[in-house]
Amino acid sequence: MPRYPDFARRTQRIPSSVFEKFRSRMKEKRSFLIQLHIGDTYLPPDYSLPIDREFLKAKPYFNRYCHTFGVDSFRRMLVKKLNEDNGFSVNVENVLATSGATNALSASVLSVLNPGDEILILTPCWPFFSGMVELAEARAVQVPFYTRLYSEPDLDIKAYLEPYLTPATSAIYLNSPNNPSGKVLSTSQLQQLSAFAKKHRLWIISDEAYDGLAFEPHQHYCIANLTYMFEQTISVFTFSKSFMFAGLRLGYLVAEEEVVKVINKTMVHQLYSPSSLSQYLMIEPLKNRQQWIPRLRAHYQELRDKAIRELRIPVHPPEGTYFLFFSIAEYLNGRSYWQVIEELLETGVTVAIGEDFGKDFSDYIRICFTNEPWEWVQKGIEKINQVLLRS
Amino acid sequence: MPRYPDFARRTQRIPSSVFEKFRSRMKEKRSFLIQLHIGDTYLPPDYSLPIDREFLKAKPYFNRYCHTFGVDSFRRMLVKKLNEDNGFSVNVENVLATSGATNALSASVLSVLNPGDEILILTPCWPFFSGMVELAEARAVQVPFYTRLYSEPDLDIKAYLEPYLTPATSAIYLNSPNNPSGKVLSTSQLQQLSAFAKKHRLWIISDEAYDGLAFEPHQHYCIANLTYMFEQTISVFTFSKSFMFAGLRLGYLVAEEEVVKVINKTMVHQLYSPSSLSQYLMIEPLKNRQQWIPRLRAHYQELRDKAIRELRIPVHPPEGTYFLFFSIAEYLNGRSYWQVIEELLETGVTVAIGEDFGKDFSDYIRICFTNEPWEWVQKGIEKINQVLLRS
Repeated sequence: MPRYPDFARRTQRIPSSVFEKFRSRMKEKRSFLIQLHIGDTYLPPDYSLPIDREFLKAKPYFNRYCHTFGVDSFRRMLVKKLNEDNGFSVNVENVLATSGATNALSASVLSVLNPGDEILILTPCWPFFSGMVELAEARAVQVPFYTRLYSEPDLDIKAYLEPYLTPATSAIYLNSPNNPSGKVLSTSQLQQLSAFAKKHRLWIISDEAYDGLAFEPHQHYCIANLTYMFEQTISVFTFSKSFMFAGLRLGYLVAEEEVVKVINKTMVHQLYSPSSLSQYLMIEPLKNRQQWIPRLRAHYQELRDKAIRELRIPVHPPEGTYFLFFSIAEYLNGRSYWQVIEELLETGVTVAIGEDFGKDFSDYIRICFTNEPWEWVQKGIEKINQVLLRS
Repeated sequence: MPRYPDFARRTQRIPSSVFEKFRSRMKEKRSFLIQLHIGDTYLPPDYSLPIDREFLKAKPYFNRYCHTFGVDSFRRMLVKKLNEDNGFSVNVENVLATSGATNALSASVLSVLNPGDEILILTPCWPFFSGMVELAEARAVQVPFYTRLYSEPDLDIKAYLEPYLTPATSAIYLNSPNNPSGKVLSTSQLQQLSAFAKKHRLWIISDEAYDGLAFEPHQHYCIANLTYMFEQTISVFTFSKSFMFAGLRLGYLVAEEEVVKVINKTMVHQLYSPSSLSQYLMIEPLKNRQQWIPRLRAHYQELRDKAIRELRIPVHPPEGTYFLFFSIAEYLNGRSYWQVIEELLETGVTVAIGEDFGKDFSDYIRICFTNEPWEWVQKGIEKINQVLLRS
C-alpha cells in the first residue's frame, strides 16, 4: 500500500517522455527550435467553423452535461460518415463519442484486458499504447510488423504471429495507416490478421486515427468490415488528424452495441464524456468533409514527396500518415544514438526517438512533415542531413 | 483471459446506472419529464463568452495539441485564482489541467492505489468514485460521515475513523462541500481529518467540485492549506459547477510538483490532455469571476430556500452545493422504495437513487434544485410531496 509519499506501482511502469530530460534545453532554444517530433498540423482547420454567438444561441444546452454516449445529432452524423466513407453499416447504438482516440483506446484496453493478460502490439507503434496496457495491469507483447511488411509484403502473417501467442493472449492492437511507419495494410494482409484473430477469438483494437490520410494509390480499409469481424473488433477514430483539431480532444469508436455499452461504462469513470461543445462544433465539418479532406490529403501527399526528396537518407515512402520513419544506424559515424539526438537538438531540430515506437527500433528516428510550415520542415531536414551525413 | 466475447472482470464490478432499466420509459415521457436526478444548471453561463472569430484568430494554436499539463496562460490564471480565493500559495508547476474533476479524480486514484489497496470513502458520496476505485483494482471502504456530522457536529473524527483503517489503507476520499448532503466541513472537522491522515500517512484526495457554492454563513476551506497537509493532498476542482460549463469537460488539480508530474503521466494515458479550446475559453471568465460568482451563489441560495419551503418532507438545509438529500423511509406507506421511485417516474419526475451514494443510504433520495427552471423544480417537488404524502 503506497502511503504518502509513495505512488502506485503502475505509475513507475508507465514510461516517461524521453523529452523530459531535454525539457530545459528545449525551453532555452524555444524561439528557433524546429519541432518535428510532434505529430500535428501547422494548418488551422481547412473548413469554416460555426463558432459564433448565433451558434451558441442555437444550442441551448451546449454548456450542460451531455448523454455520455455522445450528443445525438453528432452521433447520427458519425453513422452517416462511417457508412458512406468506411464501409460500415452501423446504427447510432454502435457509436461512442470519446475524448480523442487516446481515450477510446484507453477505455477499450481497460474493458478487455484483465491484470496479467497479454496483448499483441504490432510494432512500430504509437508510443502511448504500452502505457495504457500498464494502467490495466496487463502485459504488452511487441511483434515487429509494419516495417517488415515493406520489405516482405507476402509475409505469411498467420504463421508469423503464431509463436507470440500464449494462453494469456486476449487481444491484438492494430494501427493502419500506421504511425510511425506510414504502412497501410492491404485487404489481403487484413484478411490474414482477421483469420488469426478469428481462430483464437482475440479482440482486435483497431486504431484508425489516420483515417482519411492514406495517399494515392493506397486505400485504407477497416478490418471490422471483413466477414464476421465486426463483432470482435473495436474500431477507433479521431478528429485530431484529418480534421486537424487535436485541441478539441474528440474521437469515437465503433463496435457491437454490447461492446459500446461496456466501454462507455469504463469511459464514464475516466472522464464522464467528451466535451459537448466539441461535438456540436464538429457536426458541420463532418457534413462538408468531401469539400476539404481530399484537398488536405493531396497537400499532405505533396509535402511527403517534397520531404522525401529533401532527405538525403533512404526512407520507405509512407503510404499514409504524415511521418517519415527511418534507421540512422549507418550514419552514427562513431557517435552514439543519443549523441546524434543531442547534436540535432543543438542545431535546432527535434525528432521523435525510435525506442518509443518499440524495442526493435532503437536506431530509428521519426519526423513529422506537417507539424511546421514547409519552409521550416525543409530547414529541419537540412539540419538532419548535415548532422547525419557529417563525416 | 477474456477472449471475445468476454470482457475484463473490472467492467462487471463497475456499477451500471440505475436509470438503465428506466431508460425506455424515460424516453417515452421525455417531453414532460422533470429531471431532478441530474446535478447540473438550467442557466446558460452567467458571463460573456469570448467565443467568436476574433477569438480564434487571436489563438493561432487553438486547434493543436497543447502542453499536457495545460495551456500556459490558463494555468497562470488558475494559480492566481487558487492563491486569491482558496488560500493556496502555489506556482504553475503545482497545477494540472484535467478533463473535468472526474478525470482528475480518476487519474489520482490510479496514481496512488495499487491493486488490493483500500481507500476510505466518506459517505454519502458522489456515485462515480467507487467505479474509479474498481478501475484501479483497489477496494472502496465506505464510512458513513457527512449526514452524521449534521446530527453530531462534535463527533470525535479521529476515534471514529480508526476502526476502518487496515494495513492496506492508502488514502481517504474527501468531498466538501459534499454531494449529495450539502455538508460543508468546518476547519475544526478538517483539522481532525488532517491529524488522522498525517498520523497514518494517508493520501487525501480532496474533491472540491462545489468550490464557490458554499452558502452564507458557511465557508469552504481547502484541507490542503492546513499545516503540513499540502504535500499529501490532491485538491480537485472543476468548471462544471460554479462556472456552469459541464459541457467543456474541464477541471484541474493542485498538488506538490512531483505529485502533479506522476498524475499527469497517468492522465496522458487516459486522454492525453483536456481540450485546449476549453482552456482558452475559461481564461476570461476566471479573470472576471468576482463579477458573477457571488450573484450566482446568491441565486442558488435563494433557490435552496424556496425548495426547502416547498418540500413537505423534513430535510437538513444544505450548507453548499445544489442538492436536497433526505430519507423517505417514513413515507413508504407499505410500498417498497422502488415502487415509490416508479410512482415518481409515472407522475413525471426523476430523482437520484439513495444507494448510489453509499450502502447506508438506500432509503434516501437526492434532488437537484438547479437542473430545471424554478417553475419546473417547484412542480417536481409538488409531485414528490403528492407521491410521498399519499396515504
